[in-house]
Amino acid sequence: EKANGKRTPPPVVHYKMNNVTSTADPVGNRETVLILTPLARFYQDYWDNLLKLTFPHELITLAFIIPKNREGNSATAALQEQITKTQKLGPEKNRFASIIIERQDFDPPLSSQSEAERHKMENQKARRAAMSKARNSLLFTTLGPSTSWVLWLDSDIVETPPTLIQDLASHNKEIIVPNCFQRFIDTKTKKWDERAYDFNSWQDSEEALKLGAEMGPDDILLEGYAGMATYRTLMAYMYKEGADIRQTVPLDGVGGTALLVKAEVHRDGAMFPPFSFYHLIETEGFAKMAKRLGWRATGLPNYKVYHYNE
Amino acid sequence: EKANGKRTPPPVVHYKMNNVTSTADPVGNRETVLILTPLARFYQDYWDNLLKLTFPHELITLAFIIPKNREGNSATAALQEQITKTQKLGPEKNRFASIIIERQDFDPPLSSQSEAERHKMENQKARRAAMSKARNSLLFTTLGPSTSWVLWLDSDIVETPPTLIQDLASHNKEIIVPNCFQRFIDTKTKKWDERAYDFNSWQDSEEALKLGAEMGPDDILLEGYAGMATYRTLMAYMYKEGADIRQTVPLDGVGGTALLVKAEVHRDGAMFPPFSFYHLIETEGFAKMAKRLGWRATGLPNYKVYHYNE
Ligand SMILES: Nc1nc2c(ncn2[C@@H]2O[C@H](COP(=O)(O)OP(=O)(O)O)[C@@H](O)[C@H]2O)c(=O)[nH]1
Ligand SMILES: Nc1nc2c(ncn2[C@@H]2O[C@H](COP(=O)(O)OP(=O)(O)O)[C@@H](O)[C@H]2O)c(=O)[nH]1
Ligand SMILES: [Mn+2]
Ligand SMILES: [Mn+2]
Repeated sequence: EKANGKRTPPPVVHYKMNNVTSTADPVGNRETVLILTPLARFYQDYWDNLLKLTFPHELITLAFIIPKNREGNSATAALQEQITKTQKLGPEKNRFASIIIERQDFDPPLSSQSEAERHKMENQKARRAAMSKARNSLLFTTLGPSTSWVLWLDSDIVETPPTLIQDLASHNKEIIVPNCFQRFIDTKTKKWDERAYDFNSWQDSEEALKLGAEMGPDDILLEGYAGMATYRTLMAYMYKEGADIRQTVPLDGVGGTALLVKAEVHRDGAMFPPFSFYHLIETEGFAKMAKRLGWRATGLPNYKVYHYNE
Repeated sequence: EKANGKRTPPPVVHYKMNNVTSTADPVGNRETVLILTPLARFYQDYWDNLLKLTFPHELITLAFIIPKNREGNSATAALQEQITKTQKLGPEKNRFASIIIERQDFDPPLSSQSEAERHKMENQKARRAAMSKARNSLLFTTLGPSTSWVLWLDSDIVETPPTLIQDLASHNKEIIVPNCFQRFIDTKTKKWDERAYDFNSWQDSEEALKLGAEMGPDDILLEGYAGMATYRTLMAYMYKEGADIRQTVPLDGVGGTALLVKAEVHRDGAMFPPFSFYHLIETEGFAKMAKRLGWRATGLPNYKVYHYNE
């Protein structure tokens, strides 16, 4: 509104979506990246790692969705503090194109966010349905007509190569996912070691499909639980020390801790099913839905990112 | 960018999504409406009807997705001409909050847009898959965190009550659809008459579910074709002259010619499946997907809107 109270003629914005590319050279082609992070807890290492990404920050928009509860309030405050430092006080080259923070309009279904509690099998369906809705909310309200890429990055991913975006995009795949590991101190040797963390990136098996076929329509298959042997080929176990980091494998399910997606895959309608979709849910259901839309998922077994360790 | 070449500290935008309401009194509560129109052809009567809507225009954003072909080019030109008239030259109260025009990055699957060609059964699946992707593209890139309502309005809806938005919203339903009719001149009596147009709003039947169960996983059920008797209860035939326009009926499938949706339904992830989803596609699949998300669809059999007649 103008000072004289007159409404100015509102702008008409035109977008030619066929001019929006997502190529193997996103820096050279000045392609925009939307980094989407559902965030229940703030980790300083996440932010520090984000800042170190060498992809031009002026091509990056950050968007967060944070639960509207006490833990979410303190996470928002901590995040806001870092944002102010980076965007106002820090060096210009570190500043991102824009930042969006959304406070979620529903409660997370678990009161405890401890790793043990989160991973209990009986808690998984409700938890992952809630996570799916959070991801969808964030996606549907921040994706733009001129976004080239969407990078899903969990708030507890504390270490990645600084060239993460360029490296993933260089494969020019529709959906591509690195291998998510976790560092820990071996209690016997007292030395740092690492182990696979994310079991949601896999190649399907006859056994899993058969298990699904025998389930009720609302039941979901879960990976990494003793009571449910799927015999899927897990990317977590395909990692080979010293092997080619550019090795690719086709995947049927993907995890979302770090996940690069061409924006057109989402624009076609690929979202995170909060319900049983072919007995899959959330990021695993997303991979299946993308497949139904004619897109394929790719994994990088030897390219690692690291999850926080409680 | 500033004149001195310095990038200004980019803004952080905060959204409290729990403060976004969608109530029976959207005018009183200053709720925003996003009107979404996939547009293959421009009809002057569509625009004139839109202008006559009494819902405060400053709360309305319009967004269009238009194919990138010759017919789309002329539709864009005609639309742009009317937009300039309304937004720059017309009375202030007619001006909309903002307008977005997207040119589609894929070709429509049919070369002819004639009503006869569009409605051929063998053309329906590819056509409605393409329409679904157009709707999803438009939805995913224009829905915002502070949108309260989405009104889907086809570009060939040429007549509605001017209070359309208030009337539909007043029922405070998650998904609500009026009855879509078409005016025509009876060749015998040479007089204007009207008939049902949209058969996608229906209540399910045992027979349709059985047909679906016997189909291949990619096959879809279609309504209004002689070769496929579904025995569904069609809202098109529930209309009773002189009956209460506020009468509501529960629906399992909905049409999209005019369709009001609470934005949170879409934000949860409800989109238009471009693939067979429980043997349904596009707007009918949307109703089913919304149901899987816990939302319900409602029809207004005696509240009419009118489709253009070629
Ligand atoms: N907005 C939102 N984010 C959540 C919620 N629960 C978890 N998250 C975030 O979603 C991501 C994945 O959740 P997490 O609990 O780490 O999953 P896990 O590592 O697979 O056990 C992380 O970035 C969390 O911070 C929630 O209820 N709402
Ligand atoms: N963007 C876009 N819009 C389309 C396309 N085909 C049809 N439309 C629009 O989508 C709506 C529904 O299509 P229409 O052909 O009228 O469907 P029908 O009335 O059910 O036969 C109308 O607003 C059309 O202008 C397409 O390929 N791309
Ligand atoms: Mn995690
Ligand atoms: Mn039509």
